[in-house]
Amino acid sequence: ALLEAVIAHFRPKRLAGCELLITAGPTFEPIDPVRGLTNRSSGKMGFALARAAAEAGARVTLVAGPVHLPTPAGVQRIDVQTAQDMLQAVLPRAQALGRQGVFIATAAVADWRPAALAPHKLKKDGKKVPPQLELSENEDILARVAALPAPPFCVGFAAESEQLEAHARDKLIRKKLPLVVGNLGPATFGRDDNSLLLVDAHHATPLPADGRSADKRLLACALIDEIARRRLDWLHTQA
Amino acid sequence: ALLEAVIAHFRPKRLAGCELLITAGPTFEPIDPVRGLTNRSSGKMGFALARAAAEAGARVTLVAGPVHLPTPAGVQRIDVQTAQDMLQAVLPRAQALGRQGVFIATAAVADWRPAALAPHKLKKDGKKVPPQLELSENEDILARVAALPAPPFCVGFAAESEQLEAHARDKLIRKKLPLVVGNLGPATFGRDDNSLLLVDAHHATPLPADGRSADKRLLACALIDEIARRRLDWLHTQA
Repeated sequence: ALLEAVIAHFRPKRLAGCELLITAGPTFEPIDPVRGLTNRSSGKMGFALARAAAEAGARVTLVAGPVHLPTPAGVQRIDVQTAQDMLQAVLPRAQALGRQGVFIATAAVADWRPAALAPHKLKKDGKKVPPQLELSENEDILARVAALPAPPFCVGFAAESEQLEAHARDKLIRKKLPLVVGNLGPATFGRDDNSLLLVDAHHATPLPADGRSADKRLLACALIDEIARRRLDWLHTQA
Repeated sequence: ALLEAVIAHFRPKRLAGCELLITAGPTFEPIDPVRGLTNRSSGKMGFALARAAAEAGARVTLVAGPVHLPTPAGVQRIDVQTAQDMLQAVLPRAQALGRQGVFIATAAVADWRPAALAPHKLKKDGKKVPPQLELSENEDILARVAALPAPPFCVGFAAESEQLEAHARDKLIRKKLPLVVGNLGPATFGRDDNSLLLVDAHHATPLPADGRSADKRLLACALIDEIARRRLDWLHTQA
């Protein structure tokens, strides 16, 4: 822990004075008091980014769904359960950040929630007729933040099981983002190493540059450096 | 850890030579490569019971859904994901136990699974029309075990948000069990203390006896002692 602190101390402070908001983990959308819809997401990448950003000098707020991970040193953590909770935690804070801030959306937010929450545990009816589960669409947190009048530098994540670059670029354009980080999801969920694809308006760049996988901790530091650099370029293009 | 080992060593070996099979945790029923249906269950009670049973001299096999808990010392652990996986892990082992064995079903098994598994991540269609989620009923693992020609001593768990004794007794009769342990679920999920209601054909007895809540570890030891005692009575009533 001491060695970690020393290493952290000597990392370049590329984000000194910058405010960062990060979402991480899955959301849990209750069906009844015991059941729910959720996503596979360990939250490890988001927590590693929060830590790397704090070490790079940023003031970091981490909005986390239900995960079993310790809060990184120096990071303010807000625990939420549903996508609606997460939106309520994120939106006013993102608004307060303004263009100088950074918003990184790593959370695997549920796209849909059960249309109604049953107040008591649903019972099998004995006739083998499963209930129909009516779904409602959740609001898109990242799109809402990116559409603010003075949005922070927004970074999306795309976890895909196929056609990574195409889906990442589609998300970039549809939500009007400067950067989307692609992640060949299911193969890497919960693992400690990973490899990413950085997709912007012009390029798709693998990280690590050789396209191989790297430890999530190292990858997080490299990605925070990339975000710090791209944020400065982006700020120059803004009014 | 040394003190723990010493305490464990001196616990009475009420289950010496007995084989025990325990299920614990939630199951995860995938909808597509990233989404799924699950239950709130930390697995703590099942893991505490596995540990208490091993300390009481039993040979313990623990079939666990996705949870973040260490395997208790001396316990054989089998990790599973879905209710179907859990059934396949449990059934042959329960059959091998025979009447001398004990089966404790603490897992919060999903009653329903998505009728079809989407091979790729489902996409929002842009028209705000959520997909309909068709469900299929999962087999009832505990009922299947209790219906074996020579079943082990079967203990069910009932996690309910209301009418605890009525639901527990209904489960007792419907699945033909000698014992159901009621648990006022949602208030206690993930907590380290708990209080239980032991429901058999004749009585409903709170544990702890004063009806207050106790540490899950102590409660697990008390429940294992109760199960050991009731199992002997039950064996006398069997052919």
